[in-house]
Amino acid sequence: MNSIMLSADQFGIVYNVLSFGLVCMLATTIYTLVSQSRVLPKYRTALVMSSMVTFIAAYHYFRIFNSFEDSYVDGAVKVGTGAGDFNEGYRYVDWILTVPLLLVEVVAVLSLAKAAASSLINRLVPASAAMIALGYPGEISTDNNTKVLWGVLSTIPFLYILYVLFVELSKSLDRQPAGVAATIGRLRLLLIATWGVYPISYLLPILGQSATDPGAFVNRQIGYTIADVLAKCVFGLTILKIARMKSVAEGMKEDH
Amino acid sequence: MNSIMLSADQFGIVYNVLSFGLVCMLATTIYTLVSQSRVLPKYRTALVMSSMVTFIAAYHYFRIFNSFEDSYVDGAVKVGTGAGDFNEGYRYVDWILTVPLLLVEVVAVLSLAKAAASSLINRLVPASAAMIALGYPGEISTDNNTKVLWGVLSTIPFLYILYVLFVELSKSLDRQPAGVAATIGRLRLLLIATWGVYPISYLLPILGQSATDPGAFVNRQIGYTIADVLAKCVFGLTILKIARMKSVAEGMKEDH
Repeated sequence: MNSIMLSADQFGIVYNVLSFGLVCMLATTIYTLVSQSRVLPKYRTALVMSSMVTFIAAYHYFRIFNSFEDSYVDGAVKVGTGAGDFNEGYRYVDWILTVPLLLVEVVAVLSLAKAAASSLINRLVPASAAMIALGYPGEISTDNNTKVLWGVLSTIPFLYILYVLFVELSKSLDRQPAGVAATIGRLRLLLIATWGVYPISYLLPILGQSATDPGAFVNRQIGYTIADVLAKCVFGLTILKIARMKSVAEGMKEDH
Repeated sequence: MNSIMLSADQFGIVYNVLSFGLVCMLATTIYTLVSQSRVLPKYRTALVMSSMVTFIAAYHYFRIFNSFEDSYVDGAVKVGTGAGDFNEGYRYVDWILTVPLLLVEVVAVLSLAKAAASSLINRLVPASAAMIALGYPGEISTDNNTKVLWGVLSTIPFLYILYVLFVELSKSLDRQPAGVAATIGRLRLLLIATWGVYPISYLLPILGQSATDPGAFVNRQIGYTIADVLAKCVFGLTILKIARMKSVAEGMKEDH
């Protein structure tokens, strides 16, 4: 357990950022749920998966927010795994559910032939689950060699995901309607750019950043939250946009 | 942190006003969500954005209400950013999400040509986000020069928004059905009139109003809440009214 001293302003920033993350997830969940009827039925699975991702994240932000508030005693937040500690484990539980779902969403919104879709999903889901699961032992370890070991192991499925997304998936983009391929390309970049935040945060303690440095703690919470809002809310709204573009290309009225 | 002494009656007024704001937001959210089918599909995005605005505000009023209750100890409310303080930051987190959404609603309900709508949104959203973000450092500062500096900086995007709403947007109102242009005009005035509450409250400490004056604190909470109910609930119901008028003008049955 680490005890991190936070000033009133630092406490306020983390408190408000976590609350911001929570309400973004909730509002996006409502928006994507209500928009179901605006896309053709074949794209509704992708959309409801997006609603589930933001809902699952809203639940975890609610827990993280309460955990942060409860763990702050006498000007310090206790970070650890025990009772009353600020529990960073919530983020890993969230990611192991939401990251595979996000990848399935990308495949689902393309509405590929069944065999092609299954092949992509059967490779992306286990790889992404392995990536998150292998990161966690390194995250909670205080030993740098252990951190490096699990970090390297976690990078292997990550590189495989990159390969599938940028080589295998690209083969399917040619047959998409105009504008869709470009938007999928941006979506893929959004995913990779926001995922970049997590390994940077993971590496900081290895690079000599003290685990009890208040500024580093505050920056990590802000960075994770912004990355989550981009990778889940902005991502989900982009999925809706692609589903709308494809629905219109397939005959749905533009103003529906 | 400021400690503000409140009498039992003053506490009761603020407590009830915040609760009033919360339930107005929740009730309007339900009303606009259920009314989706009463407007043509093309106006449903505007309507669901209105539901999101009141939902996001309901979330923040819930937090503000609890924060107020928890921070009131021994006849005084502690206003600040620390744990257990009355957290005014919630209002800024709320506004940075809801103010851009309110402006997008106005554009969405007009259902302009895509290029015209994108052009308005691409100017209004960054300007409104900048207006809120630039106000916050001044709000939390206790130094008057700092307050004036950020206040002036925040006024620049505000004036730009006025220009876009009253000059650029007016060009699109000629082509709207009878009655719609007049209602949009009133909606625009409602937005500007209620926004006027926020800078007045911002200016009070600069004009010599003590930060620990109980009457000023109570008036600020009442003023913010009434402004929020007008700018979000009454605003959202007006959006619904406009969407109904336009739907009827475009062939939807009047009694639908």
